[in-house]
Amino acid sequence: MSEQQKITIVQNILNANDGLAQQNRDQLLKARLFSINMMASPGAGKTTLIEKTLQAFTPDHRVLVIDGDIATTLDADRAAKAGASAIQINTGGDCHLDAIMLHRALSQVDLFNYDLLIVENVGNLVCPASFELGTERKVLIASVPEGDDKPHKYPGMYRGVDVVVLNKTDLLPYVDFNFEFFSKGLQVLNPNVQVIPLSCRTGEGLKDWFEWLGNELDEFRKNHC
Amino acid sequence: MSEQQKITIVQNILNANDGLAQQNRDQLLKARLFSINMMASPGAGKTTLIEKTLQAFTPDHRVLVIDGDIATTLDADRAAKAGASAIQINTGGDCHLDAIMLHRALSQVDLFNYDLLIVENVGNLVCPASFELGTERKVLIASVPEGDDKPHKYPGMYRGVDVVVLNKTDLLPYVDFNFEFFSKGLQVLNPNVQVIPLSCRTGEGLKDWFEWLGNELDEFRKNHC
Repeated sequence: MSEQQKITIVQNILNANDGLAQQNRDQLLKARLFSINMMASPGAGKTTLIEKTLQAFTPDHRVLVIDGDIATTLDADRAAKAGASAIQINTGGDCHLDAIMLHRALSQVDLFNYDLLIVENVGNLVCPASFELGTERKVLIASVPEGDDKPHKYPGMYRGVDVVVLNKTDLLPYVDFNFEFFSKGLQVLNPNVQVIPLSCRTGEGLKDWFEWLGNELDEFRKNHC
Repeated sequence: MSEQQKITIVQNILNANDGLAQQNRDQLLKARLFSINMMASPGAGKTTLIEKTLQAFTPDHRVLVIDGDIATTLDADRAAKAGASAIQINTGGDCHLDAIMLHRALSQVDLFNYDLLIVENVGNLVCPASFELGTERKVLIASVPEGDDKPHKYPGMYRGVDVVVLNKTDLLPYVDFNFEFFSKGLQVLNPNVQVIPLSCRTGEGLKDWFEWLGNELDEFRKNHC
């Protein structure tokens, strides 16, 4: 296959994906269901942050979690245990979720039964950035031990998100992490993005994340109800 | 594009890649150049381990480092600074190196001038596992803060490697990491694989990694010189 053909096929796949993402977005809006796509490197703490979020939000909200994973149901099991309805998508080796996978998952439930949809993407800082799912907001969970150079090295991911959670701040005393260098990389790519430093382990900063999510939820409901 | 066509195209790409990987392997053997493909999640410490390895091996060995990155030359700069010849491959967004990228990089230098080739793959626990490059050995660098569930969640990667380095052991007192759960996941996928726990930060365990690499190098030279 020539380079040109390869590029055309990739482009076609991405165009088809964007069309389906728009359908997902329309479907979610119709059901007045606020949705976030959570992306991160493996081990940054997506599932743990989702557990903490469920503890805070399930008393007052009906939450649906859709978990993308290559092989196991470990993450969906944890979400279900923490009080959410959970659907597992096994990507069968694919390194990202795409709009059609989400579309199939959404068709399994009555979306009108939920207020908040959390989509947990596959752990990967590259491809998930290229595949729109149709969620209202995109969240990146970075983590301190990954290092401060990640915005510089994964620009596609850092450029396209609405908020950056910086998890595992409790490890700051034990690793070399220069917050200025991290922010400088981020500033170039996504100048107005909010950064929320927190530690799922100690709980420090979690209230800022809950506040961000609560405000976004309220704003969405005000605009769409 | 139907699912069937998609599967066929992916399969064709992988078959073409394997053929080229074999060509790379032949070329490296001809030059008696021992080679490793280092794979890991973003931020597991590939570049730092390569720096430490260069400090230990450049006095007695001529080392070539080929760095795969999406956008920057940060890693190749660090390898060059640490005393190796370094070539940067910018994948232009691709989430893994493939055999043709390595083939092009190899053609830029006289391979007979080197004893050890270190290929640093793109930070990703999914796709690099599917693309053979033609190196003699495959090394996975895991890290303690990523969590003990990673073999369970990224089986393709953990199944296919010759050695697992477990980096950042200095963080064990500060995170929840159950070595038994980690080993259990690994045992199922790759029963005889050696695990080398170490900390690039404190230096603890580095000698075991140097010993593994030195032994592999010696064995290779004995068989191919």
